[in-house]
Amino acid sequence: MRIGMIGGGGVGQTLGAALIAKGHEVVIGIRNPSAEELAKPRAQAEPLAEWVAKTGGKVGTFAEAAASGEVVFNVTQGAHSLEALQAAGAANLSGKVLIDVANPLDFSAGMPPFLNPAFTGATSLGEQIQAAFPEAKVVKAFNTVAAAVMVTPGLIPGDHDLFVSGNDGAAKEAVKDIARGFGWTSFADLGDLVGARAQEAVLPVWVRLWMTGGTHLVNLKVVRA
Amino acid sequence: MRIGMIGGGGVGQTLGAALIAKGHEVVIGIRNPSAEELAKPRAQAEPLAEWVAKTGGKVGTFAEAAASGEVVFNVTQGAHSLEALQAAGAANLSGKVLIDVANPLDFSAGMPPFLNPAFTGATSLGEQIQAAFPEAKVVKAFNTVAAAVMVTPGLIPGDHDLFVSGNDGAAKEAVKDIARGFGWTSFADLGDLVGARAQEAVLPVWVRLWMTGGTHLVNLKVVRA
Repeated sequence: MRIGMIGGGGVGQTLGAALIAKGHEVVIGIRNPSAEELAKPRAQAEPLAEWVAKTGGKVGTFAEAAASGEVVFNVTQGAHSLEALQAAGAANLSGKVLIDVANPLDFSAGMPPFLNPAFTGATSLGEQIQAAFPEAKVVKAFNTVAAAVMVTPGLIPGDHDLFVSGNDGAAKEAVKDIARGFGWTSFADLGDLVGARAQEAVLPVWVRLWMTGGTHLVNLKVVRA
Repeated sequence: MRIGMIGGGGVGQTLGAALIAKGHEVVIGIRNPSAEELAKPRAQAEPLAEWVAKTGGKVGTFAEAAASGEVVFNVTQGAHSLEALQAAGAANLSGKVLIDVANPLDFSAGMPPFLNPAFTGATSLGEQIQAAFPEAKVVKAFNTVAAAVMVTPGLIPGDHDLFVSGNDGAAKEAVKDIARGFGWTSFADLGDLVGARAQEAVLPVWVRLWMTGGTHLVNLKVVRA
């Protein structure tokens, strides 16, 4: 499958490398894919030039990545997601599964971050992306665990859940299939995209668990009667 | 032990009845404990007159309940907690373990509720209560599950966690002991009271799990590598 990755930080590089290892073609899109930019370290990640050399993946503009993908991931920082996706272009997202991995975290008060007020209340980043790109099939997924766990859930032993929500059932199933390819077996399906409010609210919980528990290899299991 | 319960809705009645069944003395405090008021149905609960008849517990003012308790629970609606605790009186809370069970939910947009913006960001209701009553030992606990599960965790089979945070280690241990009395065996200790931000953020997740999963008998298990 051809995958467009909007964002070239640690999450995009980790997801991209894992998808390439499974035989998919990945184009990472960044704002300005110049040689100089590719040589710079990225947010919590190596320079993209090294990622290209290691994985055989490609790097282009946001629009080139979106246009190339049959499925598109949004792995930008939440505060910049809508702008990055506008640059990717609505036409390049139309009809496609758009997996929203982003979290609208606000680090302005240091650690721990909190949810950006622009995306809280009776709304979420996932819903705002869907409203801005009504022809895309937005599925919120992968945003509730560390990048390493997204692609290797077995790093945390035992049962734990990947949270998923979206308005299009088939799109959601396609995303679960991608996750199953990484080894995910258990899903917390939160229904339509209103569930993104809950998934984004997991972040303050996750960050606190990481800060107090000493490991980012931590996730949640939903337990029901 | 003598327990003061600030608030007479379903959570206070359920916790109060369970504590009385274990031999504790409970006084539920409400704004206006008149005979007429005690005859009225409460928020998601029976009239307090029936609760008194069934349990042998007492009902008084906020201040009477707080004064009577060696340990005090805040089981008011989050939006009204600070006001109710002011009525309970700082002197009546001083030096005591104050278990904050409240959630600052905003139902103004219907279901699902979201966290009241006054208590989100780099703050939480638990921290604001601690700041307002510096002589109390505030422990955030029990706020992340349904009332029935608070006092009977075995209603949900298998391992699942009670989230706890607070600045005073001994107070937190005392609260865990109360929880152990109800059958809790597994705790997600989120450290100092900054952890209340995470515990309150669990609510949007919990409500969504309840709405999409069809049962309020649902909780989370923290799974670490």
